[in-house]
Amino acid sequence: MAEPKENLQMEKIVSLCKRRGFIFQSSEIYGGINGFWDYGPLGAELKRNVKELWWHAMTRQRDDVAGLEATIIMSPKIWEASGHVDTFSDPMVDCKGCKKRFRADQIEPQTGIVYHFSGAYDGSKFNPLLNQYPPEFRDAVKSQVLEFADDYKKQTDPSEEIVNALKARALKFKAEFKQDNCPPLTELHKEYSEAIQNKCDNANSVLLLPGKPAESARKTAMQFYQQRGINTPNLLDERTEKLEAPTTCFCNECQSELTEPKPFTLMFKTYVGPVNVSALDYKPDIDPKKLEEWFKAFNEGEKNIAYLRPETAQAIFAQFKNVLETSRQKVPFGIAQVGKAFRNEVTPRNFTFRSREFEQMELEFFIKPDEVVEAICGNVATLSDSQPSTLNPQSNWGWQAWHQYWVEERERFYEGIGLSRETLGVHHQTANELAHYARACTDILFKFPFSKKDEHGNVAGDELEGIAARSDFDLSQHQRFSGKPMGVFDDELRAAWGKLPKEKQDDLRKRYYNHRKNYLTKSAKTSEEVDAALKQADEDANGLAKGQYIPHVIEPSAGVDRLILALIANAYSEVTSTDDKGKSETIYMMKFHPRVAPIKAGVFPLLKNKPELVKKAQEVRDLLRPWMNVYYDEGGSIGKRYARQDEAGTPFCVTIDFDTLGEKPELLDTVTIRYRDDGRQERLKTSELLAFLLSKIR
Amino acid sequence: MAEPKENLQMEKIVSLCKRRGFIFQSSEIYGGINGFWDYGPLGAELKRNVKELWWHAMTRQRDDVAGLEATIIMSPKIWEASGHVDTFSDPMVDCKGCKKRFRADQIEPQTGIVYHFSGAYDGSKFNPLLNQYPPEFRDAVKSQVLEFADDYKKQTDPSEEIVNALKARALKFKAEFKQDNCPPLTELHKEYSEAIQNKCDNANSVLLLPGKPAESARKTAMQFYQQRGINTPNLLDERTEKLEAPTTCFCNECQSELTEPKPFTLMFKTYVGPVNVSALDYKPDIDPKKLEEWFKAFNEGEKNIAYLRPETAQAIFAQFKNVLETSRQKVPFGIAQVGKAFRNEVTPRNFTFRSREFEQMELEFFIKPDEVVEAICGNVATLSDSQPSTLNPQSNWGWQAWHQYWVEERERFYEGIGLSRETLGVHHQTANELAHYARACTDILFKFPFSKKDEHGNVAGDELEGIAARSDFDLSQHQRFSGKPMGVFDDELRAAWGKLPKEKQDDLRKRYYNHRKNYLTKSAKTSEEVDAALKQADEDANGLAKGQYIPHVIEPSAGVDRLILALIANAYSEVTSTDDKGKSETIYMMKFHPRVAPIKAGVFPLLKNKPELVKKAQEVRDLLRPWMNVYYDEGGSIGKRYARQDEAGTPFCVTIDFDTLGEKPELLDTVTIRYRDDGRQERLKTSELLAFLLSKIR
Repeated sequence: MAEPKENLQMEKIVSLCKRRGFIFQSSEIYGGINGFWDYGPLGAELKRNVKELWWHAMTRQRDDVAGLEATIIMSPKIWEASGHVDTFSDPMVDCKGCKKRFRADQIEPQTGIVYHFSGAYDGSKFNPLLNQYPPEFRDAVKSQVLEFADDYKKQTDPSEEIVNALKARALKFKAEFKQDNCPPLTELHKEYSEAIQNKCDNANSVLLLPGKPAESARKTAMQFYQQRGINTPNLLDERTEKLEAPTTCFCNECQSELTEPKPFTLMFKTYVGPVNVSALDYKPDIDPKKLEEWFKAFNEGEKNIAYLRPETAQAIFAQFKNVLETSRQKVPFGIAQVGKAFRNEVTPRNFTFRSREFEQMELEFFIKPDEVVEAICGNVATLSDSQPSTLNPQSNWGWQAWHQYWVEERERFYEGIGLSRETLGVHHQTANELAHYARACTDILFKFPFSKKDEHGNVAGDELEGIAARSDFDLSQHQRFSGKPMGVFDDELRAAWGKLPKEKQDDLRKRYYNHRKNYLTKSAKTSEEVDAALKQADEDANGLAKGQYIPHVIEPSAGVDRLILALIANAYSEVTSTDDKGKSETIYMMKFHPRVAPIKAGVFPLLKNKPELVKKAQEVRDLLRPWMNVYYDEGGSIGKRYARQDEAGTPFCVTIDFDTLGEKPELLDTVTIRYRDDGRQERLKTSELLAFLLSKIR
Repeated sequence: MAEPKENLQMEKIVSLCKRRGFIFQSSEIYGGINGFWDYGPLGAELKRNVKELWWHAMTRQRDDVAGLEATIIMSPKIWEASGHVDTFSDPMVDCKGCKKRFRADQIEPQTGIVYHFSGAYDGSKFNPLLNQYPPEFRDAVKSQVLEFADDYKKQTDPSEEIVNALKARALKFKAEFKQDNCPPLTELHKEYSEAIQNKCDNANSVLLLPGKPAESARKTAMQFYQQRGINTPNLLDERTEKLEAPTTCFCNECQSELTEPKPFTLMFKTYVGPVNVSALDYKPDIDPKKLEEWFKAFNEGEKNIAYLRPETAQAIFAQFKNVLETSRQKVPFGIAQVGKAFRNEVTPRNFTFRSREFEQMELEFFIKPDEVVEAICGNVATLSDSQPSTLNPQSNWGWQAWHQYWVEERERFYEGIGLSRETLGVHHQTANELAHYARACTDILFKFPFSKKDEHGNVAGDELEGIAARSDFDLSQHQRFSGKPMGVFDDELRAAWGKLPKEKQDDLRKRYYNHRKNYLTKSAKTSEEVDAALKQADEDANGLAKGQYIPHVIEPSAGVDRLILALIANAYSEVTSTDDKGKSETIYMMKFHPRVAPIKAGVFPLLKNKPELVKKAQEVRDLLRPWMNVYYDEGGSIGKRYARQDEAGTPFCVTIDFDTLGEKPELLDTVTIRYRDDGRQERLKTSELLAFLLSKIR
């Protein structure tokens, strides 16, 4: 659980984000929209810088990665192949009482006494009659009526004798209570008999929390029956059961029973093209006679369903062959993409950490299967062979070395933009956590203010990026679903294969065959399909000799928005200073690394009413501006202007004063540069300013 | 209409885009998805460069523009305020015959003879009986049966006498035809009578095009009735009508009648959040008894409807106050945004020019209303006052000068990335074309290969960007719909107002009042609403004295994808060269401006098997790489490598040869730089290379 101090920290961060224009609630003037956040002027710059740095590091700075920018809406078949249509969902439960919907795995266990009700009948006519009896008699009267009804019911066709006997008993009962002005029992019996005909038979259970009166459980049950058309529910059989252990079967808000969990897809759906009718065209005033026609047309429209991508990765797999063929790359190589993705999260939370619209930076780095590496190089480098600190891609790397390489690369990236190793964490997914096709997945974590502490008070952190070794699962799936070959031809492999001894060939072939067999038979349902899968695995294994294989992939997949939040949380700092008069003041400072800082330099003329200072300052601004984002400010005292830039996270401020103009001749054409983090100031030649700043911000 | 040559040009461009990895069809391996395009490695770089240049020019290079990055999914109320929910639609018609859907304004007028049919009955039992008669008798037999039926029908309760008379007539008729082995007319009559009971009464019209046989019109009509449950339609009354003028009332494909045009919204819809049930949850196997419940839940779900933004502009208006309050900007200032937008175009066309998912670069530049400018400056600069070539924002500019300024700025931007004025066009929207709230809109056009020629053979071009003067419409709408004030406070105005003579105040106040009145009364429906609107206009006008007003806006709105297509079309060139042996070869070259070119420089060692050349070349690559996208290539002859870069549009190639290593000592540490456009080569010192290239690409 988050502790108060940590929540306070998040509150301060959210508040600063809004106050300084880093992050606003989307559609704020309309009350917002849950799970959507906008980036204001400073946030937009910060985000651009981060994406640009990633793109630089991943594509432009390397020979072995090509870029891609695919659409958000793609063929829905892509999401069938990827498995998202079938499995990308959260288990949801509905409360049968308050009708709210919850994520099944977020229900807090509760304990208490379970009240089981078997049904209810409408007492709106019966109860007013009963209430004419004095309160102390009502229970007895009611049970008499019910017994009366039970006796009566036992007779399928009661004889006059029996009817008279019952009437006599009723009279006797009435006489005992001496309530002459109360309605006769026969009248109560009539209303009861009618109401019971239309009773609701649905059983309903309610959990009574410790310390609550039994009546509250009945009240909750009554609401349940009211929603099912019983206006004034009189509850039928009631049975209680003491729980032995806490359960997640009841609503945390109203303690009604929950439904069984049902999967709720996290993909946003929409329709593409001018469908004749879609569910979205449905209007409540549709003529009921036309419903059948409407549904028929509706089913036609279903063909036009499409999804907003829940990840950017799949487009890379779908365009793998196009990129391979046009980019002059050879395996190993990667395809990188930055772009929006959408997940209809049930409970967006932790500010921008888990939102419904977010941005990803994903690399799919395609590598040779280990069998191919071994065929070409004779061996596959193991982890201990490669010193992490000096990792440099080698041709004998198998998936483990490549996986470790990318974990290292990505950690270096985070360090390079100001997230020190102490603020980061690493989580190696266990066999249980891994997807069935994945061989390994390492998460890089950041210690957010909302990150949970373990029992020792240690914070592991929350995921910034996952680096997964996904085998050849994705390309194989797309090959199977599209019918288009997704493999590559590698002449190095073909040449090497011919020179291998027979035993080696057999060994490698068998291992490759087994891997393909495992994959291909997984989706085979009939024995014919199993046969076909085995045949295909055999063919795939034969491909090795021809230089053919399906590449494996290492996937470093990072979330932009959570990285921005990490950078903001990491940069956030408060400094309390005391002035000469002993007055203390707390100022806020965003200690962004100069590489990501939204504004690189503030440029100030010392005084705004001295045209020569202003002119010179604007010259400096115009000198720097083509190379970086600068902020020209002439308003208020220099101290105020520094403070503003501190809050914006600007690492450097440049002030043009009279010395710049030559008041002290030896300082002509020098400026004061002031460092955000320590407030230090020094003079620099204007001619050296650009080079100095460039060296810091790149 | 596009001419063959132009189509050929587009075909070549589309082909090169795919071949070189500029643009791929989205989801190509799954047969694509109409209206969606992916950018391959070169296209992604090109697009990034263009967006980055726009962002630089519009925000970082200016003091008066702040950036924003808002979500694609926003509160649906934004689209009510903007008017999109009500009016952003295309008129659509459905063909009653083939059921296809078309844009009403894209139906080609047709002429011919209209066949009107009043209905049909099922002849599946009647026709086989009729067909037992020899073909030459069938018409007579059929009309006899119909006449018979008519006679019979005239008698509500026919007497035996009449029945016998009819029978006699039938016998006589049969005797005349001497067809003893044909079925009796009474049998035909019985089947006809039964079939006519269940006839389809829907009228149907079909257009018979000139030169087509009448039978084809009947066949089309029969299909119409088949779709309405008549298996073997025998057409009832047929009436023809010769058209005087061409009409758009009939399907261009099957010539059946079209429905009246209905609006089809161009916004993509989706649902946000875990709605209990949405139309999208509908499954065809739903229990019919549960339909009512389903629809009730469905209507609940409708509250969660959301749209994919059809433009980026509205987020800027919605966040106007947040940006104003956090960015230290004062009117006039702008907010810029780059991002995806979605329109469910009925007919996406012209490659990426009109697609369903696209990217926009939009600036909303907020200015003072003319009355405010006049109050502060005493006058409003008119167009002739400002020389376009020396436009520099002045405080006395009204909307016209600001509008012209932004048209000029944007044209300069296009020139700066290689689109010369000759390739561009300008269209000033006429009063008829303008939105009711807009004061002016100037479109900047590019002459695409598919752009139409007018009767003089001139090409106007198609829209790259529109620069609209939108008055204070947008902010006013959001103020009205959100209930949140969208106006600003301007102390300059307040100070100036107090010094104005009474007559001037009255004059300005009246003009401002009239403008507000026009806007506010437009949406008033009842007399109470009109009164409220007038009161509000009065209050708004009173605000001037307090320094309050709602800013007006100039909106330069550009499409990224169509700009990319313009740059590609503009860059595309073929060069046919003839070698020494007289063999001619056509090579393709993309003459991108260095600022937008995906790759800025190719870096080649002369030979790949000379380690010292390779090492030096990689040093040069690593020298340039932090500053620009370079492509290192050691494969094939230098000529081939040049040609590859020509096709990619790389403006410069740098070759490292033995002279670089000092073979000719005076050339030590020099490289050959080769220019794409003219093939010119010159030597440059390695130490000067970076500065030289930077000067060209920035």
